[in-house]
Amino acid sequence: MDEPGSGLDEKYLRELRERIDRSAFHGWVGISVGDVANGSAELVLDLQPHHFNPQGIVHGGVISLMADTAIGLALRSRLQAGLTHRTAQLNVHFLASTKGGRVVAKGRALHSGQRMGYGEAEVYDGDGKLLSRASATFIILPAPGAF
Amino acid sequence: MDEPGSGLDEKYLRELRERIDRSAFHGWVGISVGDVANGSAELVLDLQPHHFNPQGIVHGGVISLMADTAIGLALRSRLQAGLTHRTAQLNVHFLASTKGGRVVAKGRALHSGQRMGYGEAEVYDGDGKLLSRASATFIILPAPGAF
Amino acid sequence: MDEPGSGLDEKYLRELRERIDRSAFHGWVGISVGDVANGSAELVLDLQPHHFNPQGIVHGGVISLMADTAIGLALRSRLQAGLTHRTAQLNVHFLASTKGGRVVAKGRALHSGQRMGYGEAEVYDGDGKLLSRASATFIILPAPGAF
Amino acid sequence: MDEPGSGLDEKYLRELRERIDRSAFHGWVGISVGDVANGSAELVLDLQPHHFNPQGIVHGGVISLMADTAIGLALRSRLQAGLTHRTAQLNVHFLASTKGGRVVAKGRALHSGQRMGYGEAEVYDGDGKLLSRASATFIILPAPGAF
Repeated sequence: MDEPGSGLDEKYLRELRERIDRSAFHGWVGISVGDVANGSAELVLDLQPHHFNPQGIVHGGVISLMADTAIGLALRSRLQAGLTHRTAQLNVHFLASTKGGRVVAKGRALHSGQRMGYGEAEVYDGDGKLLSRASATFIILPAPGAF
Repeated sequence: MDEPGSGLDEKYLRELRERIDRSAFHGWVGISVGDVANGSAELVLDLQPHHFNPQGIVHGGVISLMADTAIGLALRSRLQAGLTHRTAQLNVHFLASTKGGRVVAKGRALHSGQRMGYGEAEVYDGDGKLLSRASATFIILPAPGAF
Repeated sequence: MDEPGSGLDEKYLRELRERIDRSAFHGWVGISVGDVANGSAELVLDLQPHHFNPQGIVHGGVISLMADTAIGLALRSRLQAGLTHRTAQLNVHFLASTKGGRVVAKGRALHSGQRMGYGEAEVYDGDGKLLSRASATFIILPAPGAF
Repeated sequence: MDEPGSGLDEKYLRELRERIDRSAFHGWVGISVGDVANGSAELVLDLQPHHFNPQGIVHGGVISLMADTAIGLALRSRLQAGLTHRTAQLNVHFLASTKGGRVVAKGRALHSGQRMGYGEAEVYDGDGKLLSRASATFIILPAPGAF
């Protein structure tokens, strides 16, 4: 009863991916979008020198940004058309650092109700080492025409 | 007794600012560093189109990155030379959105012990509207020669 | 526009306090309610041996419970009649420990919109030492007759 | 290299359980300790009227307290003798409410390094419904003779 629907259908998912591919933000960061299914989303970032801090490890802000984006996209893929979401809160734990060449963020929606959504993400380096665990709270609200 | 010192002296603060000014990360994001005092730090970002999400509001990942950077710099300005810090955890609350031209992040260290540091930040838009409140936990560890 | 009203009037505040005074939960923990104004709430707990962990310091779960209750009550005092709230997320930072005889929690609402509320709390010991900083996200929803 | 050991041996685990069984805090809350293995811990609370809020649902403070205790015990079971831990930060998401008769908290340590530990917990009701997801950051420090 607390479930607004079975998520976006194929047509919406395709349009969602196209919107991301055109997004100035995703292009600026360098994010590639992998699988986006009903409630999960995978993002890849091939690291450039500007993603690192002066100590030579990936900047925590970059990890946070990847986690935030992956959870939001996972939730978005599960919401029905006509609803939208805003991130209310993001919590990120940094468990290990990496000097590697790539980070992968895997987000998933664990709850999407009429008013509140909740999701989590892991961020890995290219060798599969777990760098971060994150969680986020979303406000869900009506937005006629949105997806 | 749980206080590792009165922070960096003037010479270190100057070198810290120079290191930031040369940082590829700060240049990429577009962050300008304002006042950095003993335990506080102010950052400014003049927003570009790639900092916005497709809905035209500043991306949550950009807000998170600014908060993370401001708190870390505030804590760094308060640590003695010979100690370093790693962010263990970051929590960000998103309170309002903005379509404006600038965001300002104000970070401060509230606790810096022998092993643990804690700080907070606010992020405002150019009109002084509060966009975000954030907090972060740091691990403090010895790093001979570091500042 | 994002503000559901100026909070509860005097009559509601009095009834709110009476409801708390009768609450089995508050009696069990031993919480006394101090000032509850429009958007702020103060709670006091005189510590008993069962509030401490085996190391003789106040249990983190007790600190969390006080923070959660203070923020929720602060928000409740600001909501109009006809709305209710649910805590969606609570974040607690533990900054110092105490072996003292009393803890005081001071909560306040920083944002109460149509759908989302946000508040913060500090927890002090009886000597005014800061033990904890906490923040919480709330879902706000209609509840005819509630306060 | 970032792993302080393989955890407590059987003798320590038995003594740890006995210490908990004698704890005034655990007795006051009503917590029963289930399986405690190398890095995981299960707690059960048979709910009493004073664990509920005036709306008749389990108080968020009780959920937080169970999550905090389960994660801390899971981490404790994994630390070597001679080390101790302090909770630095606790984040709790409330996903569903319950009016049921029992809550079960399952904590586990995901990281325990020389200086920092990290763990997570789920809290369920007696029917297995997920009520809460939580995470916590710990400072690890030497404590000769401690376990």
